[in-house]
Amino acid sequence: MNCLDYRRMVILTDGQLSSLGAKTASSLIRYRREHVVAVLDPQHVGQPLEGLIGWGQGIPVIASIEQALAFEPDSLLIGIAPIGGKLPDAWRTHLTAAIRHGMSIVSGLHMLLRDDDELSEQARKHGVELLDVRDPGPFDRVAVGMAAELPVKRVLTVGTDCAVGKMVATLELRAAARRVGWDAAFVATGQTGIMIEGWGIAVDRVISDFTAGAAEWLCEQVADRQIAFIEGQGSITHPGYSGVSLGLLHGACPDALIVCHQPGRDHHHGVEKRSASLLDHIALNERLANARHPCRVCGVSLYTAGMSDEDARAAIKATAAETGLPTTDVVRFGCDPLIESLREAFELP
Amino acid sequence: MNCLDYRRMVILTDGQLSSLGAKTASSLIRYRREHVVAVLDPQHVGQPLEGLIGWGQGIPVIASIEQALAFEPDSLLIGIAPIGGKLPDAWRTHLTAAIRHGMSIVSGLHMLLRDDDELSEQARKHGVELLDVRDPGPFDRVAVGMAAELPVKRVLTVGTDCAVGKMVATLELRAAARRVGWDAAFVATGQTGIMIEGWGIAVDRVISDFTAGAAEWLCEQVADRQIAFIEGQGSITHPGYSGVSLGLLHGACPDALIVCHQPGRDHHHGVEKRSASLLDHIALNERLANARHPCRVCGVSLYTAGMSDEDARAAIKATAAETGLPTTDVVRFGCDPLIESLREAFELP
Repeated sequence: MNCLDYRRMVILTDGQLSSLGAKTASSLIRYRREHVVAVLDPQHVGQPLEGLIGWGQGIPVIASIEQALAFEPDSLLIGIAPIGGKLPDAWRTHLTAAIRHGMSIVSGLHMLLRDDDELSEQARKHGVELLDVRDPGPFDRVAVGMAAELPVKRVLTVGTDCAVGKMVATLELRAAARRVGWDAAFVATGQTGIMIEGWGIAVDRVISDFTAGAAEWLCEQVADRQIAFIEGQGSITHPGYSGVSLGLLHGACPDALIVCHQPGRDHHHGVEKRSASLLDHIALNERLANARHPCRVCGVSLYTAGMSDEDARAAIKATAAETGLPTTDVVRFGCDPLIESLREAFELP
Repeated sequence: MNCLDYRRMVILTDGQLSSLGAKTASSLIRYRREHVVAVLDPQHVGQPLEGLIGWGQGIPVIASIEQALAFEPDSLLIGIAPIGGKLPDAWRTHLTAAIRHGMSIVSGLHMLLRDDDELSEQARKHGVELLDVRDPGPFDRVAVGMAAELPVKRVLTVGTDCAVGKMVATLELRAAARRVGWDAAFVATGQTGIMIEGWGIAVDRVISDFTAGAAEWLCEQVADRQIAFIEGQGSITHPGYSGVSLGLLHGACPDALIVCHQPGRDHHHGVEKRSASLLDHIALNERLANARHPCRVCGVSLYTAGMSDEDARAAIKATAAETGLPTTDVVRFGCDPLIESLREAFELP
């Protein structure tokens, strides 16, 4: 089955509903609202979802799989993405209960559920699916730079860190591009994007020799579209993930970059040492991209969640002045400046 | 068993003995001469090895496993590293014959021999080992940049392409450093290096989220040494492998870089588009490394095989003038300029 075949999902967040840790859950609730019947989070039972994450009004927060049954769920989706991707032991109870009640499990963890003997046996016994969306399968293509020759215009989001809104910016840009009449595709490169779009490859789960090859293959799949918005991963300066970011950059051979950044964040998530500046990231990404294919940075998307509208506007203005680039928060203020910039760069109608 | 436990090896090259494709074979013959009893290459039977690859005098080139038996071999080592790492079907005959005669198989291919049902069954039946040196096992560590805090001085070789002598430069530098009395380690990051040194991780075979983590782990293993020479991989601008190169760079947090280059090579191996210049590679690597840890390029190692001594000297002189860096061909003219440069950089005795 494809992730889009599940249309009555319960999302497991287990206490992490209000934190950055639940970014898979919050994105599914944002982009597949109509397919989410409940959120399983015993620590937040009965609390309104929109108060916890900002959206999802009307979706109940419940304490157990048994409470979910009233909503006739078809699946339990694991809604967190911890560093390293391991399955917390405490969640096993929820997973086995779901399987027992005939629900399939959708997971984006590095640890593949199908490699777990207990869960595999239970799933077989109850005739449900363990859908490991992060598993790229036996992928073994080495990139040769051919994405540069594809007719589709390729726009990649890159970031100054993880969790600065790259996937959201990519999805919002695709939606905005469609609204102005462009034939626009979204290319999912991570587990959450795949859960939302129904296809893609989690490039960080591919053997590193083949990461760029995965990006190249993904671009081929949308070769006949007018423009493709490719979800970025990590950051070119992140101590853990920079290799994934560069493999994606050189495999996709983007024509344009949109840089994603959170104002004030000057350290990588979970890392002590101060990170490079936004300007450094812009210059470095542009230079690395141009080592393979002509490419320019066409704008900045700021992640201003938690700021007042006034502060967000001030941050956008300051960033536009600092970088000389069209700047917006795509969620709060829309994509117009970035769409205009891309229209000009690609001479689109 | 460890690769160093095999001391009577036959090396399979099967017709590729004179080409770049046999770089695993030629490196094993260079660095483990005393453990190689024969080379299996039906297309070059009876030809002197030193005429084909430049060294290995006295090692016979033979046509079949049966002919190898006179040398009492303990293992057959696969001596090529093709792009993508697949096992050519034609080789299966040699492998099964070797197993039948009680020889273990040593492989650095992406394709793991143990995943091959026929070979696995044969190996079990005849009590021999299938040693997949490229397999990193279930490695799942995310780097956090802690290699920067280790007391050992870390020197990474980086390149303008694959196959420009990074591993050889790293091994020669370690040997030269020991000759001047430094407590120097070699850190193998690829299959051939592991076959020579007996330990290491093939970082290009690690899941890309964990590539930098593998480099970090490797550095920890030599933390108490004075200086570590870390084998580089790929190139920061290679369309297929740049992610591996950057993961290694940010995971290892080197204090110094040695840049490896072949004069006149301005295209990546197997790639049409022209590559960035040597100067661009130096600047880009230095900038990317410094995003995580203070680092400087301490010299250039040129790969001048195939040039006359006079031409090689001229190339070295020109490169030193162009880059302003100590330059040598470590094989042809030794490591002195690079060792002096590192001595100065690290204030070593």
